[in-house]
Amino acid sequence: MIPFSPITEDILAEITAIAGPGYVLCGREELEPFAHDETEDLRFFPEVVVRPADTAQVSALLRLCTKHRVPVTPRGAGTGLSGGALAVNGGLMLSTDRLNKIISIDTQNLQALVEPGVITEVFMNEVAGYGLLYPVDPSSKGSCFLGGNVAHGSGGPRAVKYGTVREYVLNLEIVLPDGEVTWTGANTLKYASGYNLTQLMVGSEGTLAVITKIVLKLIARPALNVLMMASFLSNEQACAAVSGIFRAGILPSALEFMERKGIEWVKVFDHISFPLKPGDQAFLLIELDGNDSGVLFGESEKINEVLELHGCTDVLFADSSVQKEELWKIRRTMPLSVKSNSIYKEEDTVVPRAGLPQLINGVKEIGNKYGFESVCYGHAGDGNLHINIIRGGMSEDAWNTKLKAGIREIFELTVSLGGTISGEHGIGYVQKEYMPLKYSATHLALMKGIKAVFDPQGILNPGKIF
Amino acid sequence: MIPFSPITEDILAEITAIAGPGYVLCGREELEPFAHDETEDLRFFPEVVVRPADTAQVSALLRLCTKHRVPVTPRGAGTGLSGGALAVNGGLMLSTDRLNKIISIDTQNLQALVEPGVITEVFMNEVAGYGLLYPVDPSSKGSCFLGGNVAHGSGGPRAVKYGTVREYVLNLEIVLPDGEVTWTGANTLKYASGYNLTQLMVGSEGTLAVITKIVLKLIARPALNVLMMASFLSNEQACAAVSGIFRAGILPSALEFMERKGIEWVKVFDHISFPLKPGDQAFLLIELDGNDSGVLFGESEKINEVLELHGCTDVLFADSSVQKEELWKIRRTMPLSVKSNSIYKEEDTVVPRAGLPQLINGVKEIGNKYGFESVCYGHAGDGNLHINIIRGGMSEDAWNTKLKAGIREIFELTVSLGGTISGEHGIGYVQKEYMPLKYSATHLALMKGIKAVFDPQGILNPGKIF
Repeated sequence: MIPFSPITEDILAEITAIAGPGYVLCGREELEPFAHDETEDLRFFPEVVVRPADTAQVSALLRLCTKHRVPVTPRGAGTGLSGGALAVNGGLMLSTDRLNKIISIDTQNLQALVEPGVITEVFMNEVAGYGLLYPVDPSSKGSCFLGGNVAHGSGGPRAVKYGTVREYVLNLEIVLPDGEVTWTGANTLKYASGYNLTQLMVGSEGTLAVITKIVLKLIARPALNVLMMASFLSNEQACAAVSGIFRAGILPSALEFMERKGIEWVKVFDHISFPLKPGDQAFLLIELDGNDSGVLFGESEKINEVLELHGCTDVLFADSSVQKEELWKIRRTMPLSVKSNSIYKEEDTVVPRAGLPQLINGVKEIGNKYGFESVCYGHAGDGNLHINIIRGGMSEDAWNTKLKAGIREIFELTVSLGGTISGEHGIGYVQKEYMPLKYSATHLALMKGIKAVFDPQGILNPGKIF
Repeated sequence: MIPFSPITEDILAEITAIAGPGYVLCGREELEPFAHDETEDLRFFPEVVVRPADTAQVSALLRLCTKHRVPVTPRGAGTGLSGGALAVNGGLMLSTDRLNKIISIDTQNLQALVEPGVITEVFMNEVAGYGLLYPVDPSSKGSCFLGGNVAHGSGGPRAVKYGTVREYVLNLEIVLPDGEVTWTGANTLKYASGYNLTQLMVGSEGTLAVITKIVLKLIARPALNVLMMASFLSNEQACAAVSGIFRAGILPSALEFMERKGIEWVKVFDHISFPLKPGDQAFLLIELDGNDSGVLFGESEKINEVLELHGCTDVLFADSSVQKEELWKIRRTMPLSVKSNSIYKEEDTVVPRAGLPQLINGVKEIGNKYGFESVCYGHAGDGNLHINIIRGGMSEDAWNTKLKAGIREIFELTVSLGGTISGEHGIGYVQKEYMPLKYSATHLALMKGIKAVFDPQGILNPGKIF
């Protein structure tokens, strides 16, 4: 293929003519916030950041970049954990932050039409005002964008009951690299009209097209919820309880696993008060929601029975909305508190949920072998375990040279349990080298073939997934 | 492209060597059952039907057909309504009826591994024995295959609460036209590891690859359900009540619409006793399920209020499992009773559900203009309306020459309401000419590009979708 072009003065002038001079950033200091996302400590500077105002500008910009073969990195809020929004080839970064309108909320059909730069929590709050629920709540919901959620197939704690963003995207307006604009489907709950391009776009990480509008499904808002925190003497017991809860016929609205060390670090980082008793090693944060307090009470009782069967030492019921918020804060702050404590790498493993005990035990064994520590937490109800590998006392040399073999072993274990490399963070830049552990050459060739159909010149988010 | 090859004696010998002589059908009489599906009165004879026993045979057969450029039509139970399983180019029909094993039911992870030729209801009953639910129940559940359901993105009455087959497929083993075998994903509830090939396969109608194994998600079985039939003086009132029910915060496990004429025909066809009062024109069959009778009672009350607001004349509550079965039988028998009554064409329109009153009124107006009658029923909770166009008194000439323009107007109306051409039946052979009404040239080119990635020689189910 023809090599990528740098952004020349002439190309920059054309970019500026399209987006307007106030919306093109070139200075080193202006570019700095766009040079990283939340992935480890990686830094890649784009040559230019552009902040288009509408679909027409996105289209004109992509047409221009195709013409000159300038690489384009679409960018949401930069909260990603796999380096998907890093401009690893320089070029143009296309920020969607000005595409931030909630265009309409259709209370007749329970749908909303939004632009990709709307902050997830802003949208959740807006629809809550209509008594509706948009349940896809990644930990970064206060800052991440809906467009980024779609691009990465994001989940979050409530996915266990409500599904990931995949279950809520009905239709997308996309701009292809050649500037063509098309919708991917229809605004309908059911769809059997040819290949499902909407579903193909979900999780495609900005490598196929740029999303410029999103039609999202909304649901009725449950009136009540119950939140409890259960303590265990071992990771294995806690993980085993997880699949027991489902086998008892309960579908919690969240079922989160946390290791003791994660909570210890949160307590230091954010001065959260939570009584950690000696011996307790693992915790499950369990939420139920619904509209009937009797039903919730009955389900809580059933869960208690399951927890006891699995050696639970204590169950703390949140008795106020303040206490609920505090318990949730422990889980939500965990990624940040781990990050503040040590250089780390986060792996987003996912397995069939009954495999969790084997996964977590295996991770600790692999850590012992390679000399790294780990803090694990995640959406256990989905079998989705975030493994934070902590540099801690590991030498810089070992960290840089030996760790990859350890990560490889973790993924091999994940795959052997019927799982895969990423449940909700995506492959992006940092996981792509591990893809062949799971996917056959035939499978990867199909993906590359699809990429070439949408983006024959390979200008969109190059260096990601493959 | 090179033209398709007929199946010569030499090729037939190779097919027979792969599958065994007892599993290759060539005689006109043997082929007859494979020459049609449930689509109108269409007939296309394959040259040869082969019934492979396993993935290895499927792979060998596809490799052979690629080598000789023989068209291959994958075939499930032949219950499709869009002609997807018709051998419109002759060639080899690959029947999946011997791939009919339920390989395992994993009660720890609530998953099952099955072959594509398992009958949907056989599978539902099998998992029910473990207290589990597989809720995707097309009307043809007693005869259709799980593989066909996946290939067509099938739904059914319960999709309104539980989703279509799309929400239950976790992973697929597929055989590509060149004989390569690959899995499309992982056996996990969440997935963000590159393009979602599993979701791309759902609804691809046998045009991309042949499905040889399916991993399906299972859920806990609700203990109770309530079924009611509500009568209305007009289609419009009944359809308006549908979106009212959701706006009241209720999520029924089924919400089916039926026109009076459909019930009249069912009564004649199957001698079902159901009191049709004069004046009642439209009916809603509403099911609620759950585990708490108090909650179901409260929801039924709420639904009653909504129904009254929309002019409902009567609500019949089924008071026994026998009566429930009878009410369901009315809905399930309707397609067959319409078919037995007149030559017909069925359109599988889907719109955002609040558009249903406009859709059904529009269909009647278009019918008046072109001189056709119609019987409508369907999954109103999903906005999915099956429109049965009845030849009735229309002349054969008008039926053959003018009807297409009328169907075109119906689809134009559907699209103008934010909907599309098929909600669950697929495009297949009979709807493909209408695709450009909804989909841009850009969109169709993307689909064709994807097809070429999987099937560069175009041997798999040619003449479908595009």
